[in-house]
Amino acid sequence: MAVYTEVSDEAVAEFVSEYDLGGIVAFRGIAEGVENSNYSLKTTHGDYILTLYERRVAPEDLPWFLGLMEHLAEHAIPAPRPVPGRDGESLRRLAGRYAAITTFLPGVWPRRVRQLHCAPLGEALARLHLAGAGYAPERANALGPEAWPRLLSASTPGGDAVRVGLIGELEKALGRILAGWPGRLPRGHIHADLFPDNVFFLEGKISGLIDFYFAATDLYAYDVAVCLNAWCFEPDFSCNVTKARALLGAYEAVRPLSAAERAALPVLCQGAAMRFLLTRLYDWLNTPDGALVTRKDPIEYLRRLNFHLEARDEHAYGI
Amino acid sequence: MAVYTEVSDEAVAEFVSEYDLGGIVAFRGIAEGVENSNYSLKTTHGDYILTLYERRVAPEDLPWFLGLMEHLAEHAIPAPRPVPGRDGESLRRLAGRYAAITTFLPGVWPRRVRQLHCAPLGEALARLHLAGAGYAPERANALGPEAWPRLLSASTPGGDAVRVGLIGELEKALGRILAGWPGRLPRGHIHADLFPDNVFFLEGKISGLIDFYFAATDLYAYDVAVCLNAWCFEPDFSCNVTKARALLGAYEAVRPLSAAERAALPVLCQGAAMRFLLTRLYDWLNTPDGALVTRKDPIEYLRRLNFHLEARDEHAYGI
Repeated sequence: MAVYTEVSDEAVAEFVSEYDLGGIVAFRGIAEGVENSNYSLKTTHGDYILTLYERRVAPEDLPWFLGLMEHLAEHAIPAPRPVPGRDGESLRRLAGRYAAITTFLPGVWPRRVRQLHCAPLGEALARLHLAGAGYAPERANALGPEAWPRLLSASTPGGDAVRVGLIGELEKALGRILAGWPGRLPRGHIHADLFPDNVFFLEGKISGLIDFYFAATDLYAYDVAVCLNAWCFEPDFSCNVTKARALLGAYEAVRPLSAAERAALPVLCQGAAMRFLLTRLYDWLNTPDGALVTRKDPIEYLRRLNFHLEARDEHAYGI
Repeated sequence: MAVYTEVSDEAVAEFVSEYDLGGIVAFRGIAEGVENSNYSLKTTHGDYILTLYERRVAPEDLPWFLGLMEHLAEHAIPAPRPVPGRDGESLRRLAGRYAAITTFLPGVWPRRVRQLHCAPLGEALARLHLAGAGYAPERANALGPEAWPRLLSASTPGGDAVRVGLIGELEKALGRILAGWPGRLPRGHIHADLFPDNVFFLEGKISGLIDFYFAATDLYAYDVAVCLNAWCFEPDFSCNVTKARALLGAYEAVRPLSAAERAALPVLCQGAAMRFLLTRLYDWLNTPDGALVTRKDPIEYLRRLNFHLEARDEHAYGI
């Protein structure tokens, strides 16, 4: 669920009056999203999304995120476009939070990933990577490999209560991942969290890519690895090679992977599984009872990690 | 939060294809509502709400609720109107649940109740009572006074851990309430849960009354008492007599209360406070850790109950 901050009707009316968006017709909390509070805002001009940035998003990063979204939208990527107020400013304050209005994107995110979703996703990811290249400012990936040892240490007390031997298993895997991590692959702006609930489809085509608040400047092929983890595993945690092949083939039709990127896919996939495993484990151990957030099971990513640790080369992913 | 049941994109597309609503443009979970799963559904024809009925709603009651909403919408009450499929049926099945599409109502619910909301609310409640009179079928109030002793017993183990002496205090109050409960006041269909999050305002006027899934056939003045509890107390739990007077005055301009109804206001308000106190207490004690539902503090209603127990007559509410 994703309404952490309630906004009074007076406050939202005053906020919207600073835009050329007409009058408010409706204002409803959206159940989706995890990090921020999201509202569906309908005005006499149309549909918009109002996001209030919660404490997990660093305020100093917000201009970078909004700038990237603006840049991508200008370059034919279906990303939410920040809507400026009459003063030209799209990053504003509301109810004690930073807040922004963005355009509404149509479509439905796939609750159950099917093979037919994977090629459009791969193509959209490659187009996102190419389009992002013109956006000059960089942002270090705060949840990249440098962060993983610290995240693992933070979960060491309590981690073995989630699963016996878990921390030792992760320490060993993390050592192997960091030792094999590729330093010199092509890099640029990546989404870094392109899970199915961040991708809208309409009539078989991608109509929206949302939630750029983990985006960063990092290895393109790591973003591919995040998507392989998020889109190509079945409910029993087996890797669906047909889906992986569809995703990778469509990606490569737009942006071919280098031989080094292909060869690095297993370790990149291990790293991507590790990243989501570690943040889920941390949240699992640190979410207070009764909190509004749904805790996600970290062990799902241990299952994926173990698949990737056994992958001998990129052929494990159908290519 | 209110998405308990996730619906696959294929399932929702198939479901919507049974209606004359055009193609799906968007489908998003709504954060509001507590009992059921609610989705905002945009089609090429417009905006709708798709509700999946969860286990707390008795399936046999659904035709009554939908029939009442239809009747009210036909009689100029801004209630959601059930939308039938091409076969004429509005109550259908989706993702293993009963489900219905209703019309979208514009407006914003007041996160902070101000005096200016209370007269429109009182007037709308009276109009709802009058309009409902033409709907013949009845539904007993499953959370009416007959249910309270059972609800209190269900919370007796554990109740004193919420607050020392709570159960004894409630037993004494409940005895007094039931002894003084008025049996012969005017009755009809009541909303029974008309809290601020169920009432949309647009430019100072009421544009929507939603969530009829606690509606029942019971005392009209009890519905007034529910609203006094829900709309006329300040964050410090003091009763705002100006708000109460505005609510009651506007109600009476449409449907005057009889002398007996006025005289019964204190005990009806005690009963309404008891009803929400008891269901919140039960949920407080029985919501598993990590559940998606936000538990609401039962003690807020103990504070209201104590106000009503001290009310000597209807003048306590500003009339």
